[in-house]
Amino acid sequence: MIGAGQLARMTQQAALDLGIELRLLAAHPSDAGTISSSATVFGDPAKLEDLRAVSAGCDAVTFDHERIPPAHLRRLEQEEVPLRPTAAAKLVAQDKLHARELLSSLGFPVPAFEPVTDAAGLDAAAQKLGLPLVLKARYGGYDGRGVEVVTDLDDGRAVLGRGGEWVAEEHVPIERELSQLVARTLDGAAVSYPLVETVQRDGICHEIHAPAPVSDELAERARGLATRIAEAIDGAGVIAVELFLSAGELIVNELALRPHNSGHFTIEGCETSQFENHLRAVLGWPLGRTTLRAPAVVTLNVLAQRAPDPLERVPEALAVPGAHLHLYGKPLRQGRKVGHVTAVGEDHGQAHAIAARARALLGAEPEQ
Amino acid sequence: MIGAGQLARMTQQAALDLGIELRLLAAHPSDAGTISSSATVFGDPAKLEDLRAVSAGCDAVTFDHERIPPAHLRRLEQEEVPLRPTAAAKLVAQDKLHARELLSSLGFPVPAFEPVTDAAGLDAAAQKLGLPLVLKARYGGYDGRGVEVVTDLDDGRAVLGRGGEWVAEEHVPIERELSQLVARTLDGAAVSYPLVETVQRDGICHEIHAPAPVSDELAERARGLATRIAEAIDGAGVIAVELFLSAGELIVNELALRPHNSGHFTIEGCETSQFENHLRAVLGWPLGRTTLRAPAVVTLNVLAQRAPDPLERVPEALAVPGAHLHLYGKPLRQGRKVGHVTAVGEDHGQAHAIAARARALLGAEPEQ
Repeated sequence: MIGAGQLARMTQQAALDLGIELRLLAAHPSDAGTISSSATVFGDPAKLEDLRAVSAGCDAVTFDHERIPPAHLRRLEQEEVPLRPTAAAKLVAQDKLHARELLSSLGFPVPAFEPVTDAAGLDAAAQKLGLPLVLKARYGGYDGRGVEVVTDLDDGRAVLGRGGEWVAEEHVPIERELSQLVARTLDGAAVSYPLVETVQRDGICHEIHAPAPVSDELAERARGLATRIAEAIDGAGVIAVELFLSAGELIVNELALRPHNSGHFTIEGCETSQFENHLRAVLGWPLGRTTLRAPAVVTLNVLAQRAPDPLERVPEALAVPGAHLHLYGKPLRQGRKVGHVTAVGEDHGQAHAIAARARALLGAEPEQ
Repeated sequence: MIGAGQLARMTQQAALDLGIELRLLAAHPSDAGTISSSATVFGDPAKLEDLRAVSAGCDAVTFDHERIPPAHLRRLEQEEVPLRPTAAAKLVAQDKLHARELLSSLGFPVPAFEPVTDAAGLDAAAQKLGLPLVLKARYGGYDGRGVEVVTDLDDGRAVLGRGGEWVAEEHVPIERELSQLVARTLDGAAVSYPLVETVQRDGICHEIHAPAPVSDELAERARGLATRIAEAIDGAGVIAVELFLSAGELIVNELALRPHNSGHFTIEGCETSQFENHLRAVLGWPLGRTTLRAPAVVTLNVLAQRAPDPLERVPEALAVPGAHLHLYGKPLRQGRKVGHVTAVGEDHGQAHAIAARARALLGAEPEQ
């Protein structure tokens, strides 16, 4: 697995069950996943030789993040390294302009968009898309970084002034943000998870509610849409399709080709976690059932405040019956996702109350 | 954790959730747990300096096995190493004569027993206990090794001829073998798991059925008995009390002061696994609820045959819906426990059928 963050750490927990030896490429000893595998290789995912070193002899090579130069991935494939997902599929999660163009050309619903590199392009985009519009960094944004809602052209020019390439998108009115996970093998076998609602603040996912409180018909549409996208891009492993519900219609926001924050609820909430199914999928093994284990599952992200360190408050939070803690062991840095808490219940209110109480005791969020 | 077998491996899976850095003392790189922690120290659990090295700076030091010289543990405690369980409590699982004498003196039900070191002692024991009787190695037996049912004195003398100290026990007629797990902190907080039935062949646990198919009254007696024992020996962490049901009465067979094979069902089967509660207990943290997640849970051990290697058959076994595999990544050796399979269901028959099918596909046991 290229990368050694919390996704790698949780993937390793699943790998240990399946007797899979998971080797990680870690950039730094403090990466959340390094403690979880004695087979960690330290190196730079932007360096071809380090990618080669960690991949040597593996049955499948997969990813904890997007920050690998696409050209290196194509090169590794020429060298017959079994990338799962493939370099071409992974590019959909790495290059936002490519993703929009590809999905649009395949007939999937995406916001209207225009590539923008300079002020003249911004003016033209504003003419077509109206204001406000959304500027997204073409490469490398995540957790709200690289996404700006601009209400006038001066704001927009200031964003462009940071450099890099951007994609301008129409500002879609959002009723709900949803996420549909699919796990798929290169052979075309696929399973889909229950549709979830994500609650975002400042572009960062704070809450995951499973199943999403929408009609069965809408959930079925989301499942069909994500499954067709996974097939169209020939995805392998977990594919997360982030969706906007806007005026009753589903619009594709982002794709991730890896285990995804919106799937953390599956650890306690589903018969097979996203991490286990990611491993099964990238190895071409039979996929596990995704049935919900309870009527409602709520996952709350734990975002670090300056103090206290949530790790020091674990005993307090463990006193909450039914709260399942996942602390990533990361060094504290303001606003960083350092863990999550999941609770199951008969309804969302019940599950949310349990998880919120534990999160508050971790000192991560004021109790509301 | 002293030791790096499958118990350490599964404890590490729980430690990763709680943000605990788990350091292991591994005797060999092929130990099942070594892959699971980059903080593994290689050394010999029989060497005081290696025990000191792995313990340095830890908040709690606990155990994956029993094979640590008791004198070293007492010495570490003098050096203020926080052993959980304590050296005195751990001795109950290390020295069978001590365990029998202690539990007997405290009024707990144990088989009649006599220490035996020579042929004269054997004759005297046979006079008191009758024949057949059971000879158990005072130190170091596990998985049926060091336990012999002898039907005549010649057999018994042959066993003594192997050397070492032995404990002779009356041969108790067994209706069922049961196991009651308790997790306890040194402060005296304790939770108990559902009583399970274990199915043994040749002294090796093959199956675990949760909950045990016995009356509520008997289950309540087992729970009370194990909780009182945990308290009486001042246990810390998980304490497994293996019981015989004989003529309607519960008799204590063995104790283990660590996570135990009979508790593997708790990973999928209970709200908090034995591994998580072991960690919480040794750290003095609040203990988690042990509620069963389904009416019936069955765990089947995977014992290696000469061929095939179960690890090569994982994809086949994963095709069984509802089978949860746990493969320990151990080198193949005939008869060795190399994994387990758990299934939950509405009743034991349903859960057993699922787990048995997956185990058969692993090639570990003929399908029956």
